[in-house]
Amino acid sequence: MKKVSVLGSTGSIGTQTLDVISRDPDSYEVVGLAAGSNIELLLEQARAFKPKLVSIATKELAERIRGELPPGVRVVYGEDGLNEVAAGVGADYVACALVGSLGLTSTLAAIEAGATIGLANKETLVTAGHIVMKRAADKGVAIVPVDSEHSALFQCLNGERLRDVKRLVLTASGGSFRDRSRDELGGVTVADALRHPNWSMGAKVTIDSATMANKGLEVIEAHWLFDMPYDRIDVLIHPESIVHSMVEFEDTSVMAQLGNPDMRVPIQYALTYPERRSSPASALDLLAKGTLHFRPMDFSRYPCLRLAYEAGKAGGTAPTVFNAANEIAVSRFLKGETAFLAIDEIVESVLASHSVLASPDLETILATDAWARSEASRIG
Amino acid sequence: MKKVSVLGSTGSIGTQTLDVISRDPDSYEVVGLAAGSNIELLLEQARAFKPKLVSIATKELAERIRGELPPGVRVVYGEDGLNEVAAGVGADYVACALVGSLGLTSTLAAIEAGATIGLANKETLVTAGHIVMKRAADKGVAIVPVDSEHSALFQCLNGERLRDVKRLVLTASGGSFRDRSRDELGGVTVADALRHPNWSMGAKVTIDSATMANKGLEVIEAHWLFDMPYDRIDVLIHPESIVHSMVEFEDTSVMAQLGNPDMRVPIQYALTYPERRSSPASALDLLAKGTLHFRPMDFSRYPCLRLAYEAGKAGGTAPTVFNAANEIAVSRFLKGETAFLAIDEIVESVLASHSVLASPDLETILATDAWARSEASRIG
Repeated sequence: MKKVSVLGSTGSIGTQTLDVISRDPDSYEVVGLAAGSNIELLLEQARAFKPKLVSIATKELAERIRGELPPGVRVVYGEDGLNEVAAGVGADYVACALVGSLGLTSTLAAIEAGATIGLANKETLVTAGHIVMKRAADKGVAIVPVDSEHSALFQCLNGERLRDVKRLVLTASGGSFRDRSRDELGGVTVADALRHPNWSMGAKVTIDSATMANKGLEVIEAHWLFDMPYDRIDVLIHPESIVHSMVEFEDTSVMAQLGNPDMRVPIQYALTYPERRSSPASALDLLAKGTLHFRPMDFSRYPCLRLAYEAGKAGGTAPTVFNAANEIAVSRFLKGETAFLAIDEIVESVLASHSVLASPDLETILATDAWARSEASRIG
Repeated sequence: MKKVSVLGSTGSIGTQTLDVISRDPDSYEVVGLAAGSNIELLLEQARAFKPKLVSIATKELAERIRGELPPGVRVVYGEDGLNEVAAGVGADYVACALVGSLGLTSTLAAIEAGATIGLANKETLVTAGHIVMKRAADKGVAIVPVDSEHSALFQCLNGERLRDVKRLVLTASGGSFRDRSRDELGGVTVADALRHPNWSMGAKVTIDSATMANKGLEVIEAHWLFDMPYDRIDVLIHPESIVHSMVEFEDTSVMAQLGNPDMRVPIQYALTYPERRSSPASALDLLAKGTLHFRPMDFSRYPCLRLAYEAGKAGGTAPTVFNAANEIAVSRFLKGETAFLAIDEIVESVLASHSVLASPDLETILATDAWARSEASRIG
């Protein structure tokens, strides 16, 4: 029986992780849950899974739920509470599904504790890939990606040697505006942008999918996860989102992982790896689809993807700036403060005014993140 | 350095095997070559690779080449000679690329000698899968498929557990007549049938591709190679022959192997497995292809495929009858003795008049093969 902690248990990946676990109760014991401020859902999860420990954002929230938790469930809070759920309850597997920079310290804590990491937090590798992958290697800890593209790459690499890889090929749906030219994007609204053709996701990720910033973050993650130079990571447009990604090997063989878009599949694979279990996801019917299309990526159409490659190649603090500036730019667009096309411009402008620091430590990363957010809020 | 024997060295798979080996001379030593009657090519190969032993069909042919072989190369002949190349020269890897039932005894000899088998001979598994796979398992010998579809399945299963497989999906180009209805096939000529859209192959295989008998034989091989029931082996039409086959797992994930049609890739993979090496094949350009199509298999359009499934499920001697009757029917079509559509009819008729014997030994298999050939020559 695998002992599991879920960091970010009330979010989209967290709830789906618990959904997967609840379908196979003989295989898993939930030992820890960490949430932000959704106390109703956290209480419901605590009653259903009876973990040893739950953590919530603040002392006040902790006081509010203490009396309502099932017997034997202890409550903690804040960053220390989060780290205790990650590293203090004997979890074999930690689902790292927090959003934002909070994910980084708790993931590092889980690595130090020797747990397998199911990684769904993008910032962890984007901002601190050099630190996280080194600590995981030193501790002999497996980092199993939960994102559908990286899970696909991970599955394609199963049983293979990284040195036999020629390139990684990430697929991108093209997002909600894939059939519009850049000129046609000037006046698009938030509502327009939130209509993603294949995946149902949060607002931030849906906008990132439309600007291709999301794919840029995935390229940087793939660089760290699979120790692959940026010139051997390609992106192509695949509107159906059926082929989740591919690996081309030295012998010209290409391995691809396919399936319907359903996050429960990569979430479950990270839990069961290297084995597989049956899934509630629907089986892929290639005959119903009939046709799979592939189109080249147009970097001038998606400046955020070009900027992500540039930031990745620059290394050091540059990916942190890319990520932070993009978060603020998207947030400003969603609040109606800026136009859709301003997202790229804000990110490019903040990156241009940044002097890259090589091999930053955690403190430098956090300071850079704060600086980039402040810059991105100020511009335009 | 891997010691290699090639059975069927002057055929299409044999020459491509030697081509692959010649590009990486530090990794391989050719210790044995066996051919039929193409003495010019065998001599050329013997001079280039300097094996310990060559074997040729008859004593007469052996006498003719003895004086022309390089110093240190011994020549033998006939079935005994073939078995000596397979099992008597210390090969670590035996490429089993003979056509027809000769392949069976020499493959069994190589298994007994403990060599890894690169299997390109269809009859071996179709007629005697129950014997071959049992002996290989008893000896701990790996049977690595060389056929592009089975190599694809083998690659998709790399690092996976067979018990996690839901089904195998073989792809079929549809052959030279895929866009014609069955009614339009009455008067097709040999020349029409020999125009295969994607692969350049011998006449027999090209006709088998047009009748789908080839895919039927592959289904039976896949059944034995991967210990998979027939109701979990599917075939679909994929006109581009880019996806060479797929495996669907219990969690709904589908792994696929893609590449340009080039037999040197699976031939090389069998030699280098579980590693990979660079290949002279051209890299797959999915963007140049742009679109991949998938269509359902129509069993009424391709009776040979239905008959292969029926023979496979019947088991015992039935697949031997299917294979032998088909060989004769194709040969009669190629000689102009029968119509294209008579191929299916002959196979069906011979199968209908056969009483299946369960778990046949080699003698029974050979006797059944001879009976089916005689029946198929007589009918119509």
